[in-house]
Amino acid sequence: MSSKFLAVILAGGSGTRFWPMSRKARPKQLLSLIGDEPIITSTVKRLDGLIAPQDVWVVCGEPLVEPTSDVLNPIGVDKYVVEPYARNTAPAIMLSAVTLARANPDATLVFLPSDHHVADPSAFRACLERASEVAKDGYIVTLGIEPTRPETGYGYIKRSAEALKHGARVDRFVEKPDETTAQAYLDEGGYFWNAGIFVTTADTLLQEFARQYPDQAAAVNAVLTVPDKELEVAIHTAFEAVPATSIDYAIMENAQKVAVVPASCGWSDVGHWAALHDVMEVDADNNVTKGQVVATRTRDCVLFNLCSDRILAAADVEGMVVVQCDDATLVLPLDKAQSVRDVVDALKSTNLNVFL
Amino acid sequence: MSSKFLAVILAGGSGTRFWPMSRKARPKQLLSLIGDEPIITSTVKRLDGLIAPQDVWVVCGEPLVEPTSDVLNPIGVDKYVVEPYARNTAPAIMLSAVTLARANPDATLVFLPSDHHVADPSAFRACLERASEVAKDGYIVTLGIEPTRPETGYGYIKRSAEALKHGARVDRFVEKPDETTAQAYLDEGGYFWNAGIFVTTADTLLQEFARQYPDQAAAVNAVLTVPDKELEVAIHTAFEAVPATSIDYAIMENAQKVAVVPASCGWSDVGHWAALHDVMEVDADNNVTKGQVVATRTRDCVLFNLCSDRILAAADVEGMVVVQCDDATLVLPLDKAQSVRDVVDALKSTNLNVFL
Repeated sequence: MSSKFLAVILAGGSGTRFWPMSRKARPKQLLSLIGDEPIITSTVKRLDGLIAPQDVWVVCGEPLVEPTSDVLNPIGVDKYVVEPYARNTAPAIMLSAVTLARANPDATLVFLPSDHHVADPSAFRACLERASEVAKDGYIVTLGIEPTRPETGYGYIKRSAEALKHGARVDRFVEKPDETTAQAYLDEGGYFWNAGIFVTTADTLLQEFARQYPDQAAAVNAVLTVPDKELEVAIHTAFEAVPATSIDYAIMENAQKVAVVPASCGWSDVGHWAALHDVMEVDADNNVTKGQVVATRTRDCVLFNLCSDRILAAADVEGMVVVQCDDATLVLPLDKAQSVRDVVDALKSTNLNVFL
Repeated sequence: MSSKFLAVILAGGSGTRFWPMSRKARPKQLLSLIGDEPIITSTVKRLDGLIAPQDVWVVCGEPLVEPTSDVLNPIGVDKYVVEPYARNTAPAIMLSAVTLARANPDATLVFLPSDHHVADPSAFRACLERASEVAKDGYIVTLGIEPTRPETGYGYIKRSAEALKHGARVDRFVEKPDETTAQAYLDEGGYFWNAGIFVTTADTLLQEFARQYPDQAAAVNAVLTVPDKELEVAIHTAFEAVPATSIDYAIMENAQKVAVVPASCGWSDVGHWAALHDVMEVDADNNVTKGQVVATRTRDCVLFNLCSDRILAAADVEGMVVVQCDDATLVLPLDKAQSVRDVVDALKSTNLNVFL
């Protein structure tokens, strides 16, 4: 029995960590942030060879379907699971699982964020392939990124001593640690970064959901079997039956069979402006630049000029992020790249929210 | 014999120290840099009460006559001495002196840069008035700014022990000192900053020129007496007869009767972006801002947004200058504000000189 391998790209996020380049209607995954193509395009392309574009589904809210289609239609992706509204990842994922399983009951599914970077797509595909083999034994299989530094920005996955065909059973998931704890994880070994990428069969996921949420299972499973004319209502009911929380918290942490397959593929979640330093080419002064930039004695910066008819100039600047786009310019220190959130909050609380 | 008091505003500079706000065709003096009016407008207005706008002359090159007129005509300034070409301050000043003396042979003249800031105009006028009294005794009278810090960016004037009715005779002019020397000047006392502002009669200036440059005097003095139809040629000849150097070097340093009148009037030459911190109002976080700016945990910055339809945002930024204008954004540290010159040089040497 060969099960079909399908991808679900989680593209509902409207993150603000790349403001002012990212906007409500133009979230990070739709931006040509790293190379010359939108990140979501790279996300689809790196699956090709393992999962073809016609086997890729995108889950997002209604407002993002059109801008996402504009980007993905040209490369052959045209299947969408539309979230009725934003309700965290567990509802989005369960809705996708049950929707895809309706047509492909024995499908193996990979769920993956739309806005990550992978330097070595071939290693990434090999890793997914190994994960899919483990998934056939009834596991929910997370990709575990080999940590390279005591990162406090990610959750961790601790493997157990029980090895599987590939990887191992998961001992536990741990929340974002402080720096001491993160260093201890690194020293101890057996800890992986949780990239939010996992492989499982639709069947495993639905069974695990039914086991953990017996009262909600019927509502979710109904999508599998209702006649087409009742589908819309069934989808809405299923969506709301799933706790409005993350898939990790809702399912993974208490699932019976969870595995981790280690991945060394140059992964980055490109979580903020400073992360571009890790994934983009730097110049001789360790600057990442884009567009028309004049930099004098300037080091360790991210300098993004997104306006072809303007110039961005820096002199004697060190360790800063500067982003110039059509209607806004942002300046912040590289080591405080998260502070963009405070800027966004400040804009929200004023009459300047047109700039969001 | 009451001599008329006339002003000559030196407005030929096309400095680049306020790039990207200042441009070749829009030099600093024409910018509303500090308040809501161009600096040259403030320069004229602060004379009023002592010298009326119709007694103010402007000396600049042909390309700046029109943009300067646009700014000054509305306040009643309409007299220009046009430099044939840029040839440093001595030719510009001697040409102005002889041109004004042609119509006003016994005039007392104040020469002053167009782009300085004075916090206390009333004290400034009082100072000019004292200087004009000393000037009537045949002195070239410089304004000596009481130094408030060991500034290395200005030349200094050392007073002699010989007191005059106001101020004192000058002992010597000294070039921009290093920091140790500047501190010694401050400790010793009797040293003043040379603001490049001086008062003298046309007669004194022309006699001193004739004494120091006997061979060139006839060419300069010819402007006083030639018939109108020969004036244009005479002006050009006079202009080229004056050494192409600064007035300090050409005349002051070797003049027989030079005086200094101390001035405490909140003077600043506003020589670079960082100087705005000294002359503009700061907010609670010691930032100088202009335009639509959102600043979070940001201190000791100059944040200029000159675009009404855009936003400038900063988070966790300290001690930086950020200037956003139509076609360019500049970022540099406050304590390296002079580095703007290197940016301008970099633009000059590339195909980006359209941004100058």
